[in-house]
Amino acid sequence: MEVTIVGAGLVGCLLACFLARRGHRVVLYERRHDPRERGADRGRSINLAISERGIDALRRLGLDGRVLDAALPMAGRMMHSPGGALAFQPYSADRAQAINSISRAELNRELLTAATALHGVEVRFGHRLTGVDERAGRLAFESTAPDGTSGAVTVDKAQVVIGADGAYSAVRARLQQLPGMNFSQDYLDYGYKELSIPARHGEFAMDPGALHIWPRGRSMMIALPNPDRSFTCTLFWPHDTLAALDTPGKIRAYFAEHYQDAFELMPDLVGAFQGNPVGQLVTVRCSPWHVTTEATTIGLVGDAAHAIVPFYGQGANCGFEDCVELDRYLDEAGDDFPRALELFERRKTDTDVIARLALENFVEMRDRVGSRMFLAGKRVEHALERVLPGYVSRYELISFSTTPYAEVERRGVRQRRWAAAGVGAALLAALGYAARRTGLVRTRDGG
Amino acid sequence: MEVTIVGAGLVGCLLACFLARRGHRVVLYERRHDPRERGADRGRSINLAISERGIDALRRLGLDGRVLDAALPMAGRMMHSPGGALAFQPYSADRAQAINSISRAELNRELLTAATALHGVEVRFGHRLTGVDERAGRLAFESTAPDGTSGAVTVDKAQVVIGADGAYSAVRARLQQLPGMNFSQDYLDYGYKELSIPARHGEFAMDPGALHIWPRGRSMMIALPNPDRSFTCTLFWPHDTLAALDTPGKIRAYFAEHYQDAFELMPDLVGAFQGNPVGQLVTVRCSPWHVTTEATTIGLVGDAAHAIVPFYGQGANCGFEDCVELDRYLDEAGDDFPRALELFERRKTDTDVIARLALENFVEMRDRVGSRMFLAGKRVEHALERVLPGYVSRYELISFSTTPYAEVERRGVRQRRWAAAGVGAALLAALGYAARRTGLVRTRDGG
Repeated sequence: MEVTIVGAGLVGCLLACFLARRGHRVVLYERRHDPRERGADRGRSINLAISERGIDALRRLGLDGRVLDAALPMAGRMMHSPGGALAFQPYSADRAQAINSISRAELNRELLTAATALHGVEVRFGHRLTGVDERAGRLAFESTAPDGTSGAVTVDKAQVVIGADGAYSAVRARLQQLPGMNFSQDYLDYGYKELSIPARHGEFAMDPGALHIWPRGRSMMIALPNPDRSFTCTLFWPHDTLAALDTPGKIRAYFAEHYQDAFELMPDLVGAFQGNPVGQLVTVRCSPWHVTTEATTIGLVGDAAHAIVPFYGQGANCGFEDCVELDRYLDEAGDDFPRALELFERRKTDTDVIARLALENFVEMRDRVGSRMFLAGKRVEHALERVLPGYVSRYELISFSTTPYAEVERRGVRQRRWAAAGVGAALLAALGYAARRTGLVRTRDGG
Repeated sequence: MEVTIVGAGLVGCLLACFLARRGHRVVLYERRHDPRERGADRGRSINLAISERGIDALRRLGLDGRVLDAALPMAGRMMHSPGGALAFQPYSADRAQAINSISRAELNRELLTAATALHGVEVRFGHRLTGVDERAGRLAFESTAPDGTSGAVTVDKAQVVIGADGAYSAVRARLQQLPGMNFSQDYLDYGYKELSIPARHGEFAMDPGALHIWPRGRSMMIALPNPDRSFTCTLFWPHDTLAALDTPGKIRAYFAEHYQDAFELMPDLVGAFQGNPVGQLVTVRCSPWHVTTEATTIGLVGDAAHAIVPFYGQGANCGFEDCVELDRYLDEAGDDFPRALELFERRKTDTDVIARLALENFVEMRDRVGSRMFLAGKRVEHALERVLPGYVSRYELISFSTTPYAEVERRGVRQRRWAAAGVGAALLAALGYAARRTGLVRTRDGG
C-alpha cells in the first residue's frame, strides 16, 4: 500500500518508520524545507522531555539509543524560590528514573534521517497542502523550491492519507468541514516565550540533572538543559504580563524582582525577550479522527488529532505512542487501513485524559510545586510507593510506564480512595486512643 | 459609518434595520440569490416558532404586526402516543400565551423587504465570501449573476464587518485561524428530515393551535401548522434509523407501526422521505466574537456566534435578541463599534445557557413529554404559577419574557430550592401530624 503522510515532523517521521517496516511505501509531504540543510526556527521550540512512552516507541525501531545519546536525563524538579533558594524533588521513588531533555529540532533531524534511510520512504519538502478532496482521493499542494520558485502539485488516487501536520493541521481543517465532525480548540490566556541561559565558563550555570521551575503563582518559568551546556528557558505568562514589559527597563526590573537568580545568568535577556515571538497554548479535540470514502481513507495522528498543552511533558510522547497503537491496530486489521483507523478511534479515551491532566498540571507547576505542603505531600507519596506494594504515583505511571493514560486515571482514583480510607482509619484509631486516655469516652469494659 | 454585513438571512436583515435606524449605511452581502425572485430551498427549513424575544425585537422596529399576520399561534403541545391517543398541554398557565409558527423562508422575505425599504440599506445577492484580511480591512467575494456568470469582487477599507452568515459562517472560519480564538462545533448523532401533512378537504388535518409532538424515546417527530393548512413535519432521528429505512416498504412499515395517525395523513411519505436531505444538528460555541485591528473591527452575531439545536424553539429568537442587545450597546458606546462589540461579548453568558437548555430539551421532548409523570408535573407547575406569587416556570420565562437566559436559569435554581424546601416542610408537617396521631412520638405537653 502507498501511504501519504502530510507533515514530516516528529510523529510523521516516526510513523513513516513504522509503516515502512510493515512493507508500505510512504511519501511524506512537508511544508518547510529540509531542516538538516537550513537552521530550525529559533525561539519557538519548547524543549521536549522524552520519557518512557516515547522511548518505548523508539526502542521498537531501534532508535532509542541514538536519541538518548543526544538527550540529557533530568531526574527531578529543581524549584527556585523568589529569593533564590533551591529545592530538589525527584520525579520517582526510584531515583534512577529520569525524563530526557532534547531539542525538538535535533529530534526531528534524527527521525528524518532514520526515516529516509529506510526502503520505500520519501520526503518531499517545500510542499504546503492547499486542498483535500476526500471523494476523489485527491490532494493539492503548493510546492516551493529552495530558490523560491513555486508551482502546483496534485496527488491523485491517494488511497491512504495520514495527517501528522500538528495542532494547526491543514488535513483536519478539511475534515472539520464534513458533517458530523466534532471539533474544539481551546486557548489558555497564557503565552509562552523562549529565553536562554548560556554556559558559564564553559560549564552549566545550574544543575543539568533537573528540570528547573520558577513557580510564581499565576506565572512560571522553566529551564531544560542542552548538550552545549546552555539551558533553554520558557516563560509561561498571562498575555497581559508579557505585553506589559514593553521597555528594556521594565523587563530588567521585573526579572530582577521575580526571577533574580536566573536574571543574573541571562546576559541577553532583553534581546531575547523583545526578539522572540509569543507562542500560543492550545488544546485541540476532535472526533472522529478519520473519514473513509470509496476513494480514500484519511486519518489524523499526533497533535493534528489531539494537541495538548506542554505541562505534563507528554505531547511528543503521546504522539509517539499513537504510532505504536496504530501499528498494533494494523496488525490486528491485517493492514486494512480503514479498519485500523476505525479501531484507533478507541485511543481518544486515553488522549482526552492526558489533555486534561496536562491542563491541571499547569496549576500544579506554577502555583503549588513551590509550597512546603506540596513538597511534603510528594515525600509522603514516594514513601508510600516504597512501602506499599502496588502503590505508584500518577506522575510515575504517566512518565515511567506505558500504562494507558485512562487506566492511570482509574488507578489514581482507586488509590486515593484507599489512601483516604487508610488515613481515615488511622485518624479514628488515634482519636479513639486519645479519647480513652483522656477519659472523654468510657468504653464498655471501662465504664 | 458604513457597516458591511455578511449574510442576509434572518439576523442579518434584522440587524440591518436596527443599524439603518441609527443612521448607518449598511451593505449586506448574500451568497444566495434573492429568495423573493426564486423559490426557497425545499426540505431544509425547520419551521420557526417565534416567541416573545423575537416579537420584542420586531416590535421595536414596528415589524411585529406584519410578521405575526403571516404566523399561526400555537398555545401548547399536542402529544401523539403510538396508539394515536392525543394529550394537549398548554405552554403557559395563562392560556392566551402562544408561540407562533412561521416558515423561515416567509420570515426572511418579510425582513428583506423591510430592510431594503429603509434608507441606506443595500443587499448584494450572489456574493460568496472567499477571503477576509483583517489587517487590511479587506473582504473578497466571488459574485455570481443570476445568469451564472461569475467574477471577483473586493471590498476595501471595510471599517465594520458583521458576520451574520449562520452556523457554518465564513467570517468565523477566518477568525478561528487567529491566535486565541476558542471554538467548538458539536454534532448530535441525530439528523433531521422534513416531511409534510397536506390539508385534507381544504382543512387542517390536525389541530392547528398546537405544536404536535410524537415522542418515541430515542426519536421523535414534530409538526407545525402553515397558513396553507398543511403541516411541516420534522423527524429527529438517529442517523442509523434514518439510513436503515432504505426501501419504500420499510419506510411505510416503520411509520405504520410508530407514527400511525400521521402515516395516514401523509400521502407523499415515501417520496418526501427519499427525496429530502438529512440535515445536521450542531451546537457552535466560540469566543471572543470579535476582533479589532487598526483597519477594521469584525464581529459575529446569531448562529455565526452561537448556533444551537432547535429544541427550545429559540435559535431565531436568540438571534433577534442579539440585534436588540447590540443596538443597546451601540447606544451605550455612542456608536463606537469596537467598544460596542466588546460589551456585546457579555451576552455569551446568556447564549451558553440557551445552548445547554436546547440540548436538554431534546431529551425532554423525545422521551419525557409523553409520560404521565411529565404531564402531571406540568399541571402541578402551572398550578403553582397560579397560586404562588412570583413563581414562573422556566419554559414561560424563556418563551414569554425577555428575562436574560442566564437570569432565567438562576431563578430556576432558586425556585427549585424553595419548592423542595416547601415540599420538604409540608412532608415533615404531615409526618409529624401522623406520628402524633398514631402515638409514635410523645410531644412534651402530651407526655
